[in-house]
Amino acid sequence: MTDSLLSLQQRHIASLQAYYESLMAHFDIDAIALYSGHASAFFADDHYPAFQAFGHFVHWVPLPHAEHCWLVIAPNTKPTLYLHAPEDFWHLPTQLPDEPWCDAFDIIRISDIAPPAVSPNTALVGDINALPAELRAQLKGIDAPEALYWALDEQRMHKSDYEVACLREANRRALDGHRAAEAAFFGAASELDIQLAYLAASRQRESQVPYQNIIGLNAHAGVLHYQHYDVQAPYQRHSLLVDAGYRFRGYAADLTRTYAGPDAPSVFADLITAVTNIKDTVIDAMAPNVAFLDLHTLMHRYLAEVLVAHGLFHGSAEQALEAGITRAFCPHGLGHSLGIQVHDVAGKRLTDGTPCPSPSQHPALRLTRTLAPGMVITIEPGCYFIPMLLEPLRQRGLPLNWALIEELLPCGGIRIEDNVLITPNGRDNLTA
Amino acid sequence: MTDSLLSLQQRHIASLQAYYESLMAHFDIDAIALYSGHASAFFADDHYPAFQAFGHFVHWVPLPHAEHCWLVIAPNTKPTLYLHAPEDFWHLPTQLPDEPWCDAFDIIRISDIAPPAVSPNTALVGDINALPAELRAQLKGIDAPEALYWALDEQRMHKSDYEVACLREANRRALDGHRAAEAAFFGAASELDIQLAYLAASRQRESQVPYQNIIGLNAHAGVLHYQHYDVQAPYQRHSLLVDAGYRFRGYAADLTRTYAGPDAPSVFADLITAVTNIKDTVIDAMAPNVAFLDLHTLMHRYLAEVLVAHGLFHGSAEQALEAGITRAFCPHGLGHSLGIQVHDVAGKRLTDGTPCPSPSQHPALRLTRTLAPGMVITIEPGCYFIPMLLEPLRQRGLPLNWALIEELLPCGGIRIEDNVLITPNGRDNLTA
Repeated sequence: MTDSLLSLQQRHIASLQAYYESLMAHFDIDAIALYSGHASAFFADDHYPAFQAFGHFVHWVPLPHAEHCWLVIAPNTKPTLYLHAPEDFWHLPTQLPDEPWCDAFDIIRISDIAPPAVSPNTALVGDINALPAELRAQLKGIDAPEALYWALDEQRMHKSDYEVACLREANRRALDGHRAAEAAFFGAASELDIQLAYLAASRQRESQVPYQNIIGLNAHAGVLHYQHYDVQAPYQRHSLLVDAGYRFRGYAADLTRTYAGPDAPSVFADLITAVTNIKDTVIDAMAPNVAFLDLHTLMHRYLAEVLVAHGLFHGSAEQALEAGITRAFCPHGLGHSLGIQVHDVAGKRLTDGTPCPSPSQHPALRLTRTLAPGMVITIEPGCYFIPMLLEPLRQRGLPLNWALIEELLPCGGIRIEDNVLITPNGRDNLTA
Repeated sequence: MTDSLLSLQQRHIASLQAYYESLMAHFDIDAIALYSGHASAFFADDHYPAFQAFGHFVHWVPLPHAEHCWLVIAPNTKPTLYLHAPEDFWHLPTQLPDEPWCDAFDIIRISDIAPPAVSPNTALVGDINALPAELRAQLKGIDAPEALYWALDEQRMHKSDYEVACLREANRRALDGHRAAEAAFFGAASELDIQLAYLAASRQRESQVPYQNIIGLNAHAGVLHYQHYDVQAPYQRHSLLVDAGYRFRGYAADLTRTYAGPDAPSVFADLITAVTNIKDTVIDAMAPNVAFLDLHTLMHRYLAEVLVAHGLFHGSAEQALEAGITRAFCPHGLGHSLGIQVHDVAGKRLTDGTPCPSPSQHPALRLTRTLAPGMVITIEPGCYFIPMLLEPLRQRGLPLNWALIEELLPCGGIRIEDNVLITPNGRDNLTA
């Protein structure tokens, strides 16, 4: 790691300490205990799924897969990290890197899974109820009030310089994967082999990616959260959509690219360019005090213009918007907050906890807030050809170019996604 | 799929129906409802870990990752499969293969996650308590008695011809992966790249392997359940241990191979040959009515002879056994039952539910039963150089060749593992 990243991390931890101290004063509590959580075995089995540690724990401690660990924060003292490190020849012992963040904590290695002794006026934050009943009973402290969770979430929304550096590096490494995926596609690989090429180039294993990579060939590109990897390559290659990230010190990249294959109609490549332009134009409009919903609406307006310009809709852009046609071509939100979680916390709740729900016309929108410096947001316009959504438009007799749509169905759809930091004066595209 | 496999599967389902009918009569219940289970999201997140369906559900239905599904079995009628198939453009809809097993069930597609209406005298089997409280409250039926679970487990121990065919095919595909892993090792690949080569050759993704592949280079080969994949290849290459499987129609292969690298002392390659011979000799002794513990003891006797023959222990094999030296070189059990689960059910409990615990000297033994036709068992002798276990022998002043052990420490250890079916007259090695 570079020295600058590591010193940024020390400042990040110091500022978390100050923020947590202000919350402890506000909520009149003596300490906050963050539980990393633990995996549960599959039912009636002795095997476990992959585990991802609780976001607020990872906010302090860059161990995104740590289980059975606790961090106890109190005013005017170093936080204590209870590091689960069993003496065990079955597994590689827990090792900490030789990095300065370790000095920010008093580290106590614990060989069992008993929770630490904390003072009774400690707020317990995390998946406490997943503890075995006898351990839960041992645990002093109080369930954290919901408002404390909101306040912790809110801090996550505003990234420190350290967090931005991590997100930028995660983007860089994810792009290595995307280049390899593109090359594998033009080498006629199957979805499984494109995924493996992505993992090899980005240097990560499937169980540690921040979200399951979407690798959709042809019509699968139109399944928004397509969840399989076919092991056979298709005979015809119309398209590839890759929505894939990287987790760097706990921080997630979330990037999407779409490619036209040799069997796609030429309009598909034009539409990829058009959606890429929507992405760039929306990003240019990002700045503090802009409502994210307005950007989402802007995306729909540009998409309406694209549908008209490429002959998919025989009418005006205004008519396409009014008739809800763009929502059938792009049923998901423009983007979401990004950080330790891919759909990061606090996207639909104000600082004081007031809910900020999605408007009824845009139920899938995951971010409804006004942009502010330090937010990191995905911008991911899309244009899909999804029979289940287009069929109702046909029933309504709307003037769409059904012959062209038929031609595009085997391409599935398009999504182009970057990750963008809001700066005091505008934005900084972390993907560029 | 071959016709013979598919017709074997029909007979498998018919014989399960007969067995379940006998249990319903015995326990005086009207029906048995098997719940496939479902994944739970990570705490305070909207992402889910990979899911593996409940073994008794997969025993009937070859959908090892099916969530929110139910199979209701009653006497003299086709079982009803409630197949969770939401109408959803976010995910690829649930698709069933065009295979005869589908005709063995009445299939009802359900778009929500509500449990089916069952008669009150239905035994509920599976992770029922993981259901949301309001759904659990809707569910009629009774918690299955523990003895019913034991009886279902017992049937899993004795594989049908269909299950044996699946396990044999899983072995064949896993061996494709092992060959690729060996080639990657001799190509100086990192652990991550060896793992990706294994996945590419065996045609599977990490989240669907039956257990997390162990890919240990050098000293990592001596960490029994080594759980990482280093992204950097080491400068020196002493050894590679690959413990990796394949899941075919829900059935698991579990195979281990160990390779000597260019930087290993020549005795390490000799020891690999010796452990391979132990594996083969123990397999030759497998037959109905043989106690598995006797085979485990046999493995230790052979291992003692190997330690003497290769100059690791200066004394007799009897002395090595009596002093517990072989248990420091091989702290795990000889093997375990294998099927839908990697450590398959009923390994330490008799047909009537009587527990059959491991002897105190061999606490890690996962199978304590007497062999019978239809059992499929892993045979996995090992010889490791684990400082935590060898150091106490040094403290005791036992006559081990510490200079040779020091030379072997960077090799980590050796494990060689095949999967073997017990036949009426002996055994059939599914890996050969």
